[in-house]
Amino acid sequence: MGEEISNKQVILSNYVETSVKESDMSLRTSKIQLKIPSGCDGAVFVKNLYLSIDPYILGRMKKRVPYLSSYTLDSPISGYGVSKVLDSSHPNFKTGELVWGFTDWEEYSLIKDPNILFKVHDKDLPLSYYTGILGMPGMTAYVGFFEFCSPKKGETVYVSAASGAVGQLIGQFAKTAGCYVVGSAGSKEKVGLLKNKLGFDEAFNYKEEQDYDAALKRYFPDGIDIYFDNVGGKMLEAVLNNMRLHGRVALCGMISQYNSLEQSEGVHNLFNVIIKRVRMEGFFTIDHYHLYPKFLEMVVPLINEEKITYVEDIAEGIESAPGALVGLFSGVNVGKQVVVVARE
Amino acid sequence: MGEEISNKQVILSNYVETSVKESDMSLRTSKIQLKIPSGCDGAVFVKNLYLSIDPYILGRMKKRVPYLSSYTLDSPISGYGVSKVLDSSHPNFKTGELVWGFTDWEEYSLIKDPNILFKVHDKDLPLSYYTGILGMPGMTAYVGFFEFCSPKKGETVYVSAASGAVGQLIGQFAKTAGCYVVGSAGSKEKVGLLKNKLGFDEAFNYKEEQDYDAALKRYFPDGIDIYFDNVGGKMLEAVLNNMRLHGRVALCGMISQYNSLEQSEGVHNLFNVIIKRVRMEGFFTIDHYHLYPKFLEMVVPLINEEKITYVEDIAEGIESAPGALVGLFSGVNVGKQVVVVARE
Repeated sequence: MGEEISNKQVILSNYVETSVKESDMSLRTSKIQLKIPSGCDGAVFVKNLYLSIDPYILGRMKKRVPYLSSYTLDSPISGYGVSKVLDSSHPNFKTGELVWGFTDWEEYSLIKDPNILFKVHDKDLPLSYYTGILGMPGMTAYVGFFEFCSPKKGETVYVSAASGAVGQLIGQFAKTAGCYVVGSAGSKEKVGLLKNKLGFDEAFNYKEEQDYDAALKRYFPDGIDIYFDNVGGKMLEAVLNNMRLHGRVALCGMISQYNSLEQSEGVHNLFNVIIKRVRMEGFFTIDHYHLYPKFLEMVVPLINEEKITYVEDIAEGIESAPGALVGLFSGVNVGKQVVVVARE
Repeated sequence: MGEEISNKQVILSNYVETSVKESDMSLRTSKIQLKIPSGCDGAVFVKNLYLSIDPYILGRMKKRVPYLSSYTLDSPISGYGVSKVLDSSHPNFKTGELVWGFTDWEEYSLIKDPNILFKVHDKDLPLSYYTGILGMPGMTAYVGFFEFCSPKKGETVYVSAASGAVGQLIGQFAKTAGCYVVGSAGSKEKVGLLKNKLGFDEAFNYKEEQDYDAALKRYFPDGIDIYFDNVGGKMLEAVLNNMRLHGRVALCGMISQYNSLEQSEGVHNLFNVIIKRVRMEGFFTIDHYHLYPKFLEMVVPLINEEKITYVEDIAEGIESAPGALVGLFSGVNVGKQVVVVARE
């Protein structure tokens, strides 16, 4: 046995029924070997630096959501993160390298099967960006907008949850594509951010709107060509009423519905999908990582030339992870929610 | 003024609120000139032979359904039909020719703008087929299945309203594409037809199923790759629970929902569209008529070689049109509902 070290973890205490509470998770300190144990060929041992707090995690905290693998009780939550390789028995990764991808919510992780683990491409950019603009949310925005929404110059784009990890990028990508873009978010502060910092043409606070349909008609008198849906439910219904002919809806997340996935708010007007010849498509970013190099080629210059910006909400310490996750569903975070476990 | 002739018409007496009743229409006998009046360049004067009774007509009988143009009160209902040209001032059509396309529900029509009017291609086939397999429903099945569902050999296909004008063709096209196909319909007779005459692998009577989800699991233990949706509502919801990864849903009609388009049954599980990466697409056949020659090239040999069959339900006389339309929504018809106005 090699040297052991103390390892703080966030574990799943019980499966979530509807809404997530901090008490569904607990902190535990266990021990972990500093070296890769024998018999673990192809594994990577990492120190976790940043954890990505994403809405889909709630789905995996539930017991039976089809096509999402549930977490194991009393084991650490897992998700995307940025880590430093401390030991490697995998030919692609070397000790000392920085990586991002699937890891566990703990200080140190033994990643036995690093099939979703990428090298950090550009160390001059903030490392936390690999949980956001340069990681899964960035790829989600890129794939969802450019591959699934096929934007054309002059088209109108609407984004819900627009100041979030993905939404803020959709808005900025839409502007680079020559589209008119409107975002909605849940506070005055977020609306200000969208208009003043992130370059959205317009933005509104959905919590101040009695009637989503009327709000959309105000911002899109001629209708919506592209909707990047992060929320589902009533907002999706209102959007379908306002879609233009041959509109496209990318379904990426349904944060308003995660609490009750199996019986969420009904969408009662799918007839619009027919009469407006709408294409509605769901996707998982994980199916599209072959496009990651192409994405970096596009986005890194945009960041370096300050043509694109990225707002993060960084919580300190692994202890803050449960609260940060819960906060995501009440919209406490402003921008991409990240947890710092350690700074290198 | 030229010679006038008596012209029986089916007119819209009042806009339909929810369900259509025969009393929403009335029969009227008016007069029409046998020749094209002067000043009507480009018009075609026809004798109507067959009228196509289609579900979408109910949408146009309502006052305000977006993207569907409502009929004018006290004017004839219009729709697809097969007609004989009696006089023409349009360069593409000659007296004596047989045509199919948009006409009015009356014995004789002056078609002022024949932009949706096609020549009857093959006079050896039953003329009524141009309201069905060789007309709009045939094109709907062709475009919907081959263009929107991208079938691959060995995939599983489910069709609702499967013995109807479009559904019976989807099933047969699916078999030619090497797919496994199951249809649902609303009577024992229709289910027999699907299995014994139309070549579906399996069929069931949805009215005998308490739980659509369980029924679909029985016929598709490994899930559904392609759903051709003719009905919408609760059945669509059950299908989404049973879709496979990367499944495709073509939304063509929502006959179960036409009575209450604006607030139809809610679909509460669109989250499935994301987690199963489903593409859901609505279409209007009218956008795809450039494919009509290609479609005929495929379908006419299949008919001539008796590799495909087509079941029609023919009502006699223009007086039967209101009843035939109402019957469509209670499923009285078996196969494509046609009304014969005259036999040449």
